[in-house]
Parts: sequence; structure tokens; C-alpha cells
Amino acid sequence: MSLTLSPHQLVHALNWRYATKKFDPAKKIPAEMWEALEQSLILAPSSIGLQPWRFVVVTDPAVKAQLVSASFRQTQAADCSHFVALAVRRDLGADHVDRHIQRMVEVRGVALESLAKFRAMTMGNLEKARAAGTLDTWQTHQIYIALGQFMACAAVLGIDTCPMEGIEPAKYDEILGLAGTEYATVVACAAGYRLEDDKYAVAKKVRFKAEEVIVRI
Amino acid sequence: MSLTLSPHQLVHALNWRYATKKFDPAKKIPAEMWEALEQSLILAPSSIGLQPWRFVVVTDPAVKAQLVSASFRQTQAADCSHFVALAVRRDLGADHVDRHIQRMVEVRGVALESLAKFRAMTMGNLEKARAAGTLDTWQTHQIYIALGQFMACAAVLGIDTCPMEGIEPAKYDEILGLAGTEYATVVACAAGYRLEDDKYAVAKKVRFKAEEVIVRI
Repeated sequence: MSLTLSPHQLVHALNWRYATKKFDPAKKIPAEMWEALEQSLILAPSSIGLQPWRFVVVTDPAVKAQLVSASFRQTQAADCSHFVALAVRRDLGADHVDRHIQRMVEVRGVALESLAKFRAMTMGNLEKARAAGTLDTWQTHQIYIALGQFMACAAVLGIDTCPMEGIEPAKYDEILGLAGTEYATVVACAAGYRLEDDKYAVAKKVRFKAEEVIVRI
Repeated sequence: MSLTLSPHQLVHALNWRYATKKFDPAKKIPAEMWEALEQSLILAPSSIGLQPWRFVVVTDPAVKAQLVSASFRQTQAADCSHFVALAVRRDLGADHVDRHIQRMVEVRGVALESLAKFRAMTMGNLEKARAAGTLDTWQTHQIYIALGQFMACAAVLGIDTCPMEGIEPAKYDEILGLAGTEYATVVACAAGYRLEDDKYAVAKKVRFKAEEVIVRI
């Protein structure tokens, strides 16, 4: 692959990014851009490749308004262009694993039997986590990988985001039709374009000094 | 900001990325590239901007070899160019918050008093999580945001990575000098360049169909 971004450009984009407080409600993300951002979610890495997630993309104004009321009145949900709720597959079990394995067979054209060892290894790991009570925690970690990839990808495309942990997940699940399913909202992210008068856009980014955060051995 | 990457280029980079099994031990990431990747960690978004982390970058061959033995013999730790252990700040409390606030004062030139409300809000949120027993879980989520951003940024630079959850964190802490500190290894990531004969590099990427993962409202 030829390099598509220089280190300098990358760091510029990452410094340009900030948690956008005010989105411009009039500016919509062009379709081609949004499709690439959906791909950043679909293609996100996950443990054992299990993709324990569902991403609910909201552009309907009425639903966005409802989400504001489930987000402690943070208006980003309404004013952004595309709003994403990232939901985890709870209590992940054999049915999900078999769906993934079936997909491996389809995509790679391999025999189902050749994946028996992979299946046993995967189920073993899942059962171990289930017994330890850490299964949902483990899978939830993967949601945050997708969130991190999504925000970084948006930045290099010049699209603003605001990650939102201050939400009421159970209310989200009701509004988004996830209640009663195997999926549960974990976190959300607004995407769109900053409003020019968002004072946070010009505030200097605060980070600990590199030597306090990076240890080199 | 002018766009630095087209949607097409982004999706190409994300498809090019895979969890690299075999790194070329002879190929090192150039300094300028690595500095940009360190910035992707330093500049990663985190809840309330608290940066509850430390990143241990390992290039010393002897330490990398030790880490292989703490990673169920996965050789990526040894063969990659730069290996990163991502550690979370446990039991995050007032000292860390005040260090962050002091940094806000330094970087933004604002008065300490002006941040009293921010401090109270932050401490309130942390104490609530501590009481609920979710403080470390919450902060650990931020580590995975940094991991997601790191892998996406590496991909757009043309650098290979392999996320590693199959590690023994307590052994890592001993090897990396984190044992007995407030920081604990959560996950690791190898970075470098794929070896040409890594069969996983050419295996088709397996993802559920978009309609199974993305819900549009």
C-alpha cells in the first residue's frame, strides 16, 4: 500500500479533533463520507473477530429529539448530522459464534469442518469468561475499539464527532427498539460539523506532557 | 481543515489492516512515523479529558522476549518494531484530577478558581462510579478508545498492528515496572510491518453483512 497520509497530516487531524459541543444543524455529512464512516465501524477490529455489536444510526429528527431527553439534555444528539448508538451483544453464545463461522465459510470459501478447532477455542474462551462473570465486560471493550476507530477516521476525513457516555442506556434501548433484544446500548457518538461559534473548538487541547504518559523501555 | 484523506482512501486503509500474526523483525518504524503514533495515543479522547492511562513502549529486545513469555508465546511482541502496553490508572481519585486541572491552568492560562465547578462535577462523577464499583471499568473503557484510535491511525499511515488481549497482565506489570504503582496493564498492541509470508495478510476479511450490523433510523 502506498502511504495515504503523512505523519504530519495525521497529527494535524488529531489536533483538529475535539469533542464538539455545538454542531451546525444545517450541515449534513455527504453520503460518500458517511458510507466510509459506517465502514470504519463495520471493519473495526474485535476480539477473535466476533464483532459483538450493532450500530444504530439515527438521522430521523423526531428520534434524535427523543435521544436528547435520554442524554441529560445534551443537544448534540439533535444538532449533529448522523448520530450513532453503539450497542453490545450481551451474553454472547454459540448462536453468534456459529453465525460468524457461517460467514467465514461464505467469505473465505473454506469447509465448515476446517473451522472446528477455531470454534472449540472460541467457545472455550467465551465459556471461561461467562464463568468468571466477565463476558459482557470483555465484549463491551470491543465497542470502545469501534468508537476509537470511528472518531479517528472521522478526524482524518475532516468530520467532527462528540463521544457521549453521559446517556441513559435503558432509555436509548427503548427509543431505538433494542429493549428485549440481545443488544444493549453502551455509548453513543454524534458526527457532523462544528458550529463556528463553539468556543470549545478554539480552546487549547489539554494533555499531560508526553513524558508523563509515555514510558519507553 | 482541508480534507487529508478521501473516503475511498480511508476504506482502502481499513481493509488493508488486519491483525498481523507475523511481523518482519528486520523492519523498524521510522522515528517520524512512530512519533505520530505516540501522538495518536497522547491525543486520544477520554471521558472528561482525564487521560486515565500510561503507555509503555517497548523496543528493548530482552524485554520484548520476556513479554512473549507473558503472552502465551505469541511472538508478535518480539518480532514487531514497537510494542505498546496500555495501562489504566486504577482507583482514579483527586490527585489525578488535580494534576489534570493544574495542566488546564498551564495550557489554557485560566485561573484555578474558574475550574472549581469542573472539579466538583468531575469528582462527583468519579465518586458515584467508585460507590457503584464501576470506576476502574469506566476508566478501562477509555484505554480501548486509545487502542482503537492507535490501530486506525497506524492503518492510515501504512503501519501494521496486532491487538493483544491474550496476555497475562500481572506478569506484564512485573516486567514493565508497573507492579505496585497505580497503573495496571489492560491490553497490548504490536506495531511494525507484516512479513510477506503471513498467510493471514491475504485471507479475506470476514465481516457480517452491513444490514446485520448497521440499523438506520
